[in-house]
Amino acid sequence: MAEPLSTDKIEEALADLTNWSHEDDKITKEFTFDNFRDAIGFITRISFEAEEQVHHPEIFNVYNTVTISLSTHDAGGKVTEKDVALAKTIESLYNN
Amino acid sequence: MAEPLSTDKIEEALADLTNWSHEDDKITKEFTFDNFRDAIGFITRISFEAEEQVHHPEIFNVYNTVTISLSTHDAGGKVTEKDVALAKTIESLYNN
Repeated sequence: MAEPLSTDKIEEALADLTNWSHEDDKITKEFTFDNFRDAIGFITRISFEAEEQVHHPEIFNVYNTVTISLSTHDAGGKVTEKDVALAKTIESLYNN
Repeated sequence: MAEPLSTDKIEEALADLTNWSHEDDKITKEFTFDNFRDAIGFITRISFEAEEQVHHPEIFNVYNTVTISLSTHDAGGKVTEKDVALAKTIESLYNN
């Protein structure tokens, strides 16, 4: 089972990413796209990575925006290394 | 531009559907699946219909659940015939 990270560790991890925030025991980012198709394409790409990492984000889509929130169910809904790892993957998908 | 429907008209339309609710000027339903892949598959199928109808839902996914909320931006965020039409389409995707 993944252990919850300390707030310091989370802030440290987020410093390596762009525009992720830590609140309500989740790490979150809103991504913006040119249109709905690109937003759905992003969700689809995330879904393959989520299955591979056996870790699943909360995904919220409204037209050209996708908001991703990450926490670890098995760690009492706290943020763990699994969330940081998936955030890094999602960030790299967004930048490629 | 689509006109907002009266509450009575909305309730009447929802009576033909299953487990949709009307609140906060939206019509909403939570759909449940066997797993994450099926949930993402449902989102993908919805996305094609949304593009075809030129009308886009709010989509919220957590693992095997997908919550869809519909309202019409061009009608001041109220519920219109466009929302009812897309709800019917989404309902039919779920049942097939």
